[in-house]
Amino acid sequence: MNKRTEIATLGEFGLIRRLTENIEIKNASTVKGVGDDAAVLHYEHKEVLVTTDLMLEGIHFDLTYAPLKHVGYKAAIVNFSDIYAMNGKPQQITVSVGISKRFSVEDMEELYNGIRLACDIYGVDMVGGDTSSSLTGLTISVTCIGECDKDKIVYRSGAKDTDIICVSGDLGAAYMGLQLLEREKALSADERDFTPDFSGKEYLLERQLKPEARKDIIEMLAKANILPTSMIDVSDGLSSELLHIAKESNVGIRLYEDRIPIDYQTAAQAEEFNMNLVTAALNGGEDYELLFTIPLAVHEAVSALKGISVIGYVTSPNLGSYLIGRDGGEVPLIAQGWNPL
Amino acid sequence: MNKRTEIATLGEFGLIRRLTENIEIKNASTVKGVGDDAAVLHYEHKEVLVTTDLMLEGIHFDLTYAPLKHVGYKAAIVNFSDIYAMNGKPQQITVSVGISKRFSVEDMEELYNGIRLACDIYGVDMVGGDTSSSLTGLTISVTCIGECDKDKIVYRSGAKDTDIICVSGDLGAAYMGLQLLEREKALSADERDFTPDFSGKEYLLERQLKPEARKDIIEMLAKANILPTSMIDVSDGLSSELLHIAKESNVGIRLYEDRIPIDYQTAAQAEEFNMNLVTAALNGGEDYELLFTIPLAVHEAVSALKGISVIGYVTSPNLGSYLIGRDGGEVPLIAQGWNPL
Repeated sequence: MNKRTEIATLGEFGLIRRLTENIEIKNASTVKGVGDDAAVLHYEHKEVLVTTDLMLEGIHFDLTYAPLKHVGYKAAIVNFSDIYAMNGKPQQITVSVGISKRFSVEDMEELYNGIRLACDIYGVDMVGGDTSSSLTGLTISVTCIGECDKDKIVYRSGAKDTDIICVSGDLGAAYMGLQLLEREKALSADERDFTPDFSGKEYLLERQLKPEARKDIIEMLAKANILPTSMIDVSDGLSSELLHIAKESNVGIRLYEDRIPIDYQTAAQAEEFNMNLVTAALNGGEDYELLFTIPLAVHEAVSALKGISVIGYVTSPNLGSYLIGRDGGEVPLIAQGWNPL
Repeated sequence: MNKRTEIATLGEFGLIRRLTENIEIKNASTVKGVGDDAAVLHYEHKEVLVTTDLMLEGIHFDLTYAPLKHVGYKAAIVNFSDIYAMNGKPQQITVSVGISKRFSVEDMEELYNGIRLACDIYGVDMVGGDTSSSLTGLTISVTCIGECDKDKIVYRSGAKDTDIICVSGDLGAAYMGLQLLEREKALSADERDFTPDFSGKEYLLERQLKPEARKDIIEMLAKANILPTSMIDVSDGLSSELLHIAKESNVGIRLYEDRIPIDYQTAAQAEEFNMNLVTAALNGGEDYELLFTIPLAVHEAVSALKGISVIGYVTSPNLGSYLIGRDGGEVPLIAQGWNPL
């Protein structure tokens, strides 16, 4: 059950073979995957999107509570999310890992099982990567390549005065999940036989440990013939992302506090922790929801869609970016990203 | 002169702005570079090549003797080399770095100056990346995107019986440079006022610390209308790369020991260290030369080109892969890659 094969017994090339065997190519844009100096892709009549994310042990994940399979899944998902945020379709990923001696071949298989599961679910091909030994923790670097029709790409820079601001799903749950896991970790360090009780909090854990990218939202908007004017994914927190759109689009922002979508588990946990719920939702990060703006004219069409909340509107730049509180008072939006550095 | 600005004073977005400001886009294939969720590229009528390399402090570089600017330059070059090894042209890179507290903003500028210098020299656009704090050493992950006409891509798998095997430049120098640097590091640890004397060994240091990718060879072959049947770059050592070609092409290999190109500085250093010169050239690695096969019919045309050595020939697979010694004896080629893991 807990078989442990040292990586040294396979060597670099043996490990790569083991981790990448039986990969079935799913996309026509993939001409040649793993196994040469570079992967070969074919993108006729499509723009090519490229994004990359680095995940470092101790910074982005903690293996005391995050299973390697989940870490792999999440490493892929956060990249897919960036491609969807351009209104694109992820097509290929490369995966580089730096592995210290404490990891076994079976550990790496777990990690890659998570990556491959994400690839299967989202229809993405793993086409290359690099493996290296590491003196310290686990390092994972994923690059994702996606495609989009030229006239369908949505940048951060296209928001216009009077546009409506929308966000998918709900916010703050991943952050509360992290707080919960960190608390249980601290408690379990004190007690030897500690068994954490997460019942009724499953959603928070899932949002932190196994997030999804909003492929469904992109497909739903396309089906409804709604093309956002600007879009970004919520990775560093709603405030931070809104300010990116404000800056890149040269606009102002009005965000309604009482419109921010929050799950009841998030709210209950914030109360238990005596934390400010709105702060968690604004600055928590790692939600991987899509934040986008649409012309006022399609307001009704968007309102009819499930899983999308209208949370504010776009103004001229001289009006600045503010949160409108429940009492109608305005507080400046401040980027207080959650991610370290 | 030795100004030190803490990265925390800029924050993640401030640092990214500082490191990527004033980037001028050089390639028509780059539609949108740094500054959105993903870069946007346009590749009409060309195949897209993707490669990635991970460089970790203490494994791939040692900052006791490698200047950060050189580390950055090399991180870009090793990726360009992979694109050339497909007979492609590198067009874009993304750069992700994990940075521990001991690095300053000025340190990161040095690193990026090296990367940007490589991009300027090789005509490549930096289009994105990621920055993160790191609990330990410096982590650099570079992904390179390149282009090639569909009918000009050269894989590892195209070598045919009776093909001629060629390699560019000379081999083993980067490995000897590393040995030299490691020795001087050990000596300087013992003596406080130690000043290493590298005169007459400049080539070895340059090959280790600031390698180049063989863009010139790719251009020369194209000009001479010579399309290799298979190609790979020499990163893990000549033996290892030849065996990759043998395996992927399903052929055998005969390599002549006395044909392996070796610089006199490499030979002199091997003698000083009492090391086997051929072993260093066969297994040293990090040469970033191009190893390729050509049809027998263009043997004369290739022989006329400067900087390319004919080192052996391709056989049917049942004849295996052997080094033919100076005495005519045959020794099996063994992959004994230099890179850790």
